[in-house]
Amino acid sequence: MSAERVGDAAAFELPAELAIDTRVARRIVVDFIRSQLRQAGFERVVLALSGGIDSALVAYLCAEAVGPERLLTVLMPYRTSSPDSRLDAEDVASRLGCASTLVDISPIVDGYFEEANAPAEAARAESVDRTAQGTGAGASQLRRGNFMARARMAVIYDHSVTWGGLVAGTGNKTETLIGYTTLWGDMACAFNPLGDLYKSQVRQLAGHIGVPEAIVAKAPSADLWPGQTDETEMGLPYAVIDRILFSLVDRRRSPAETIALGFDEAAVLRLDRMVAAAEFKRQMPPIAKLGPRTAGIDYLYPRRRPGSARR
Amino acid sequence: MSAERVGDAAAFELPAELAIDTRVARRIVVDFIRSQLRQAGFERVVLALSGGIDSALVAYLCAEAVGPERLLTVLMPYRTSSPDSRLDAEDVASRLGCASTLVDISPIVDGYFEEANAPAEAARAESVDRTAQGTGAGASQLRRGNFMARARMAVIYDHSVTWGGLVAGTGNKTETLIGYTTLWGDMACAFNPLGDLYKSQVRQLAGHIGVPEAIVAKAPSADLWPGQTDETEMGLPYAVIDRILFSLVDRRRSPAETIALGFDEAAVLRLDRMVAAAEFKRQMPPIAKLGPRTAGIDYLYPRRRPGSARR
Repeated sequence: MSAERVGDAAAFELPAELAIDTRVARRIVVDFIRSQLRQAGFERVVLALSGGIDSALVAYLCAEAVGPERLLTVLMPYRTSSPDSRLDAEDVASRLGCASTLVDISPIVDGYFEEANAPAEAARAESVDRTAQGTGAGASQLRRGNFMARARMAVIYDHSVTWGGLVAGTGNKTETLIGYTTLWGDMACAFNPLGDLYKSQVRQLAGHIGVPEAIVAKAPSADLWPGQTDETEMGLPYAVIDRILFSLVDRRRSPAETIALGFDEAAVLRLDRMVAAAEFKRQMPPIAKLGPRTAGIDYLYPRRRPGSARR
Repeated sequence: MSAERVGDAAAFELPAELAIDTRVARRIVVDFIRSQLRQAGFERVVLALSGGIDSALVAYLCAEAVGPERLLTVLMPYRTSSPDSRLDAEDVASRLGCASTLVDISPIVDGYFEEANAPAEAARAESVDRTAQGTGAGASQLRRGNFMARARMAVIYDHSVTWGGLVAGTGNKTETLIGYTTLWGDMACAFNPLGDLYKSQVRQLAGHIGVPEAIVAKAPSADLWPGQTDETEMGLPYAVIDRILFSLVDRRRSPAETIALGFDEAAVLRLDRMVAAAEFKRQMPPIAKLGPRTAGIDYLYPRRRPGSARR
């Protein structure tokens, strides 16, 4: 097992404390996908394939869980999206032998920013959304990026109806914790197979499961504008971000304890703030409590099939 | 208080067990809006104004909570939306004296269905989405309706950035419980002021607070296609739906106990199934558990300001 983990990790930096047993993780996630479908009464899956490592790995895991003939991958480039991303996504669909369709979201996005009455300027500096980090893009690019992520959500959910399948999410634990997601955009799904795997662990599992090396090795990017890379935008490599988050969240260490381990103080404090600031992206909107039982407060049930007991 | 409640209820059927103390409810909701903004560090609110009673009431309550000068209402008609809805929405914004802007979502929606590569037909009968009820619309209209709701979400969140305000939700308890909402569409917001008020109670509070009588009295409609009304689509009047839901959910009675009270058996069983089937719309997507602490499973925190204690 130890030898396998080292082999998995050869292509990138995998911090020792983050190494997972890839065979166990693979089985857990595949079982999770099957149980989510069974519980909801579905046999098919649809997912947005970007050409990046997260959605490629989810495609491999879903194909393993339900068979490639029950999987639809949807490629949704914008006109400025990288052509290489599209080629990588097509390569995944072709290797898996699953159905694949392409929807150019440019008319949808441009229909808002060019034709509808979109506001020209951000009137205020505050953002309630994906936050510009480090040397990232300006407000206009961020607004477009968020709109694109939400347009893709609307398109993938329309395909979930025509395909008759559940939407598999592609978010990982790193981006979920720090809020490097678009609320109601890329975070929107029926179930989230990789939501408890840090980016470093996604790479490890993707290497183990046979995701094409070109996809595993390339610099992660949300591809929301040309040249964007996650690590440039965030100003830290994933290996460092993941280790700090693992210490703060999974090991329950305080920022001070984490800094005492040798991590950069500014990075620890910034990530701790980001986790706190993103709490709202991991919760349903709060409801004003007025009646005897209120959804999300004291009316809480697991997902269930109609006809099963509630009380 | 009793006389006031009767007065509030004069314009429509208000079941006795659903009558609320409107002055208390008003104060609770206004305080809720202020506390949500304070907790997130915002002073402004943006909301989608449809011309219907729910969003009109939220607009009145938000204007009372923050002042009309800090409220932006966004009207987002599609080309088939009722012109009367738009007039009603404009009337609300004008009476409140708040900012108002109009975004025609037709280019966004048509950009998908007419220009992008949208699938022509539903390949399977199952729906994972807003369900056609009673004499409602066909699959194509439902798909368009859901896409419109999601396009409006993307537009309102873009305005939340330019306005620098939080998005107030407009969903009520009835539609939240039975899932008469579009997932990641009209249910998407930063906070939900009316989520614990049944439609009958929304009408009562709207009458008390001075929402224009034309809006309070008209037949509720999602206005997703011409001539749509909620009650025709659902096959039951809201007064009946609300009483049955109140018995099942708030009074914790079983379907059999609720039927024994004299409610129609088929209606009770159908609503009970709908509440169960909509559980997934009231929860964040489940994550496969792999690490020591997992968002939504054993990593659970209230919303908080960055810098506040997590442990």
